[in-house]
Amino acid sequence: MVAGDQAVAPNSRSSSLQPLLDLVGADLKRVNALILEHMQSSVPLIPQVAEHIIAAGGKRLRPLLVLAGARLVGVDNDRPLALAACVEFIHTATLLHDDVVDESDLRRGRQTAKAVFGNQASVLVGDFLFSRAFQLMVADGSLAVLKLLADTAATLAEGEVHQLMTAHDTATDEEVYLQVIRAKTAVLFAASAEVGGLVGERPQTEIDALRGYGENLGMAFQVVDDVLDYLPEAESRGKALGDDFREGKLTLPVILAFQAGSEEERTFWKRCLEEGEQQEEDLSHALTLLERHRALDRAKERAQAFAVEAHRALEAFPPSDAREALKHAVDFTIDRLF
Amino acid sequence: MVAGDQAVAPNSRSSSLQPLLDLVGADLKRVNALILEHMQSSVPLIPQVAEHIIAAGGKRLRPLLVLAGARLVGVDNDRPLALAACVEFIHTATLLHDDVVDESDLRRGRQTAKAVFGNQASVLVGDFLFSRAFQLMVADGSLAVLKLLADTAATLAEGEVHQLMTAHDTATDEEVYLQVIRAKTAVLFAASAEVGGLVGERPQTEIDALRGYGENLGMAFQVVDDVLDYLPEAESRGKALGDDFREGKLTLPVILAFQAGSEEERTFWKRCLEEGEQQEEDLSHALTLLERHRALDRAKERAQAFAVEAHRALEAFPPSDAREALKHAVDFTIDRLF
Repeated sequence: MVAGDQAVAPNSRSSSLQPLLDLVGADLKRVNALILEHMQSSVPLIPQVAEHIIAAGGKRLRPLLVLAGARLVGVDNDRPLALAACVEFIHTATLLHDDVVDESDLRRGRQTAKAVFGNQASVLVGDFLFSRAFQLMVADGSLAVLKLLADTAATLAEGEVHQLMTAHDTATDEEVYLQVIRAKTAVLFAASAEVGGLVGERPQTEIDALRGYGENLGMAFQVVDDVLDYLPEAESRGKALGDDFREGKLTLPVILAFQAGSEEERTFWKRCLEEGEQQEEDLSHALTLLERHRALDRAKERAQAFAVEAHRALEAFPPSDAREALKHAVDFTIDRLF
Repeated sequence: MVAGDQAVAPNSRSSSLQPLLDLVGADLKRVNALILEHMQSSVPLIPQVAEHIIAAGGKRLRPLLVLAGARLVGVDNDRPLALAACVEFIHTATLLHDDVVDESDLRRGRQTAKAVFGNQASVLVGDFLFSRAFQLMVADGSLAVLKLLADTAATLAEGEVHQLMTAHDTATDEEVYLQVIRAKTAVLFAASAEVGGLVGERPQTEIDALRGYGENLGMAFQVVDDVLDYLPEAESRGKALGDDFREGKLTLPVILAFQAGSEEERTFWKRCLEEGEQQEEDLSHALTLLERHRALDRAKERAQAFAVEAHRALEAFPPSDAREALKHAVDFTIDRLF
């Protein structure tokens, strides 16, 4: 599953997204209006399915990155609005296809589009939203942006296929895991942050810094998401405990526990994840093994290292409200763990 | 199912595609090399799945239209080659997704990618090829071509969703059927023919004529394909008799027979197509009803009317080898019925 944006629970420590919302919240409203406008079609099932997944919420992290990245480098026209919608359409299309691939019936604690409308509608409406994304880019007219997002889309698909190949395979190591999440998650964060630099025709060093920020934020975000899957506290935030375990996914916590595990423990992981033979008590045993090898803590440390890199990338820019807000977004990502 | 290009049987009347192959066969070889090159990826499952469907053959009708359309208007550079590959990638991506949607295990008498590699790989490799198509367009660099093909991709997806909504619905009339096949099939033929006009920066009248040719050819092609589904002779050409019937599709022959049918006959169609309750002898009864109401002949007449329009569109151009070859392609499409 690509990391979905969990709904923000009231009174959680989600307040660190607030600076980003203070900065570009008005623009985000206009982006939401564009999203609604461009998901319309004369074929009524299309807006129905699209609304199910788009209106379901999520924090619009990627559009926020587009808007704030553009603000950071001084873009003062409306071009980032349509491109923010475009990035959200690409993300939504991958979520729709991902649910078919994961055979998931729940996302963010709600029924998936696939569960409500079926595989067929999810595949085809995903294709439609993906096409709409390209129509929005064409209307913007920048070949540099088109190249960035066409390359990004190809990498996303490669990452998803790579993940499919590594699912159920306990030979997956940390290096392969990082390759997969970089491709399936971090490149879209990277591209979202980079878009503003291209629109503003900024020097390559600034474009690289924006990209480095987004990519490291995306890496931290996905590692955190994979840790949350094994945290009972996270259930209150709309994530079901152990989904990845039940689907046989080799995420970082499991990879770390497997590698540090005894022969007997490895046999357990193989039975549960490779052979898919799970009994009810297995998840609780898995949690014990993760604890025994400090696998969740060690994964959190990896996430924090990416967060540090994201902060460092922003040092390329002089202090500003936009820079502060983007830094807070990094902290927000990590804070989901605590 | 989007009309696939059935493999050409030896000694069939397929000879009328020969003028097109004589005209641009050398370029088509280079297009095939580009297709092979651009379906590569560091993720090995991608070329495996892509090769299964792309190398399976088909006549490359859409790339042929790109090449011959460009030749017709005097384009003498290599740009149409990459755009021909791009159009084939879009077509292939829709086939991969279509097989998931249709739940088909056979296409052109071969196992579908879905049957061999599963739904998940078919969805994701389809996404990858679709992204590759946009990368090829971006490398070409024409915003006019990008706009044409992004719009086309959105319409294709709308057509597929519209078809999904009309499947199993005997209230589907000829007008809705024509809307669906125009969107899911004819627009990609139209765009393929139009590309050359855009690359050659020809006057709008010529671009419209190319588009009119491709669109009418595509309409004829899909109607013929839907008739072939009910012709036992077509089985020798790799198409299984009655696939659409078994899948509950409301194609033109059934629509014509349903509308002309008695109350009892309509009850039969509803049971078989809406309720999906079919016994073994039902297909043969369906063929009897199609015969009784001349439904296949009447559908053929519709296909021929589109063929006439395709020919007429070409009259906008002076006589040439390219024009003759494109006319022969129309005849070839219709000749599949005889």
